[in-house]
Amino acid sequence: MQEKIKVAVDAMGGDNAPVEPIKAAVEAVNENPDIKVVLVGKEDVIQNELKKYTYDPQNIEIAHASEVIETGEPPVNAIRRKKDSSIVVGMNMVKRGEADAIISSGSTGAVLVGGQLIVGRIRGIERPPLAPLIPTEKGVSLLIDCGANVDARSSHLVQFARMGSIYMENVVGIKNPRVGLVNIGAEEEKGNALVKETYPLLKECKDINFIGNVEARDIPAGVCDVIVCEAFVGNVILKLYEGTASALVHQIKKGMMSTLRSKIGALLVKPALKTTLKTFDATQYGGAPMLGLKGLVVKTHGSATSKEIKHAIFQCTQFSKERINEKIKEHILEETN
Amino acid sequence: MQEKIKVAVDAMGGDNAPVEPIKAAVEAVNENPDIKVVLVGKEDVIQNELKKYTYDPQNIEIAHASEVIETGEPPVNAIRRKKDSSIVVGMNMVKRGEADAIISSGSTGAVLVGGQLIVGRIRGIERPPLAPLIPTEKGVSLLIDCGANVDARSSHLVQFARMGSIYMENVVGIKNPRVGLVNIGAEEEKGNALVKETYPLLKECKDINFIGNVEARDIPAGVCDVIVCEAFVGNVILKLYEGTASALVHQIKKGMMSTLRSKIGALLVKPALKTTLKTFDATQYGGAPMLGLKGLVVKTHGSATSKEIKHAIFQCTQFSKERINEKIKEHILEETN
Repeated sequence: MQEKIKVAVDAMGGDNAPVEPIKAAVEAVNENPDIKVVLVGKEDVIQNELKKYTYDPQNIEIAHASEVIETGEPPVNAIRRKKDSSIVVGMNMVKRGEADAIISSGSTGAVLVGGQLIVGRIRGIERPPLAPLIPTEKGVSLLIDCGANVDARSSHLVQFARMGSIYMENVVGIKNPRVGLVNIGAEEEKGNALVKETYPLLKECKDINFIGNVEARDIPAGVCDVIVCEAFVGNVILKLYEGTASALVHQIKKGMMSTLRSKIGALLVKPALKTTLKTFDATQYGGAPMLGLKGLVVKTHGSATSKEIKHAIFQCTQFSKERINEKIKEHILEETN
Repeated sequence: MQEKIKVAVDAMGGDNAPVEPIKAAVEAVNENPDIKVVLVGKEDVIQNELKKYTYDPQNIEIAHASEVIETGEPPVNAIRRKKDSSIVVGMNMVKRGEADAIISSGSTGAVLVGGQLIVGRIRGIERPPLAPLIPTEKGVSLLIDCGANVDARSSHLVQFARMGSIYMENVVGIKNPRVGLVNIGAEEEKGNALVKETYPLLKECKDINFIGNVEARDIPAGVCDVIVCEAFVGNVILKLYEGTASALVHQIKKGMMSTLRSKIGALLVKPALKTTLKTFDATQYGGAPMLGLKGLVVKTHGSATSKEIKHAIFQCTQFSKERINEKIKEHILEETN
């Protein structure tokens, strides 16, 4: 029998904890027999919640953690002091090889700091980026980095491009993924100091499919598969994407309710519209992996429901099966040789 | 009789020149008797086009310019060499006080460079930002800077906040406009080196209403009136805004056409939806002013139609009437004293 992939899930993190992470764990193991989930958090709370469900108890374990890191806490302090928090306990399991991956909807800062300090970087990786999949008209693109690595250097961006390509090819299944550098114009000479320095370096990379600069305008249309940028810009892209979509949908709904005629029309278009908007729903695609660490760390939205967390669990399975970290190590070794 | 406000319009710039800029000029002078438009460009082309319309010839002049700067040309070279281009001729009119403002839908780079090199900065202004109005759920916000000033310093951002406040208060009519600094989190200690340095400086400004950091997610909801950021980030915000809205509207239309039921519904919601989407249409709000110059320079979209250019002409009138540049000078003087 093949060994199961073991995914630790922070049962205490996020707005909907413990209900949604625990529901996700049960659904994941019930749908996929290759997965074992370790729920990390307060044992009594988790056990109580688990009573609601039917599942094979061999597939869900509990790892007790008495503390919880709150969203507002300064991340470095929280990770250092709350040794028995669900995030720290879960990350230590990944570090010791007791779990293949950890998923948390808790404090983004704590997840990023914990990933670096506890799980640790792969040798040769300068900065581990946070890389969510964002929906586009053509499918999904990987936005890398939108994590905590502000004020990045060009060498970081080159590693992001490489790691992102490996992820998109092996986890998402896009052959020869197109890599674009976010810039304020399409021409090579455009941009700030960072992108001007990064462009020629990416052009030289033989192992990626660099298509040049991409403008933010073309991202939603799916102009490339791996969107390379530094974290500040990536964060702005991710959040504006969510904000614009939600404001527009809100306005459209309001518009449809404005006249009797349009109200009747709204009833008729509703089912078709729901299907459409689903494709623009980020939660379909699971969480954001933090790449370049010795184990897999996945951040799900603070507001994640069981659907998103379950998708993230499946994503971790794919990541382990495809031996992504081994592939990243090989590429980095090549680069430094 | 009060003297008319004289606006130069580049009749050769943009995808729809000369038709749309000339149409805009005629509509503007016909709607507002206080305005005189100078059409800058090839005299024969302009005269030929003007034949289509009825207007008081006292209100439209032509300033001949034999050359045109193309979008692809390197801006600095183009401005230096094409002395008889519509952009250079129009800017020289502003410089010599022969026009109060110049509007162009031509090369953004050439407009920005021309503004700096020909019209020139107000004494004390370090960088003249390009500041478009973007639609939000509550009305409009000023995005400052999304021009060519990449790699900005914190002192530039402080001036952007001040100039943006003056503009929103006097041209758009928002009392005590709320100023937000684009950041990757709401807390004061968040961000990259630039915003960390800028935050305390903005907090100290007595003459603006600084509300702190704003996240990109909250921009479409209208969280603040003046959105302060450096040009690279501003450009990403502006273009992603346009790109996301157009991709989403495209998907929604496709969704509505997917079933017979939804097609009938679509017919019923169409008029209401059109009204709604109009509020999210950037062209409603005229062009983007370049602030901090000795005269007013306004950049309209390359794809601008007469509607946008006409709005930009009215914007220039308001700018002159409200003596915005005198107000900016006073503030900068106070700052340096």
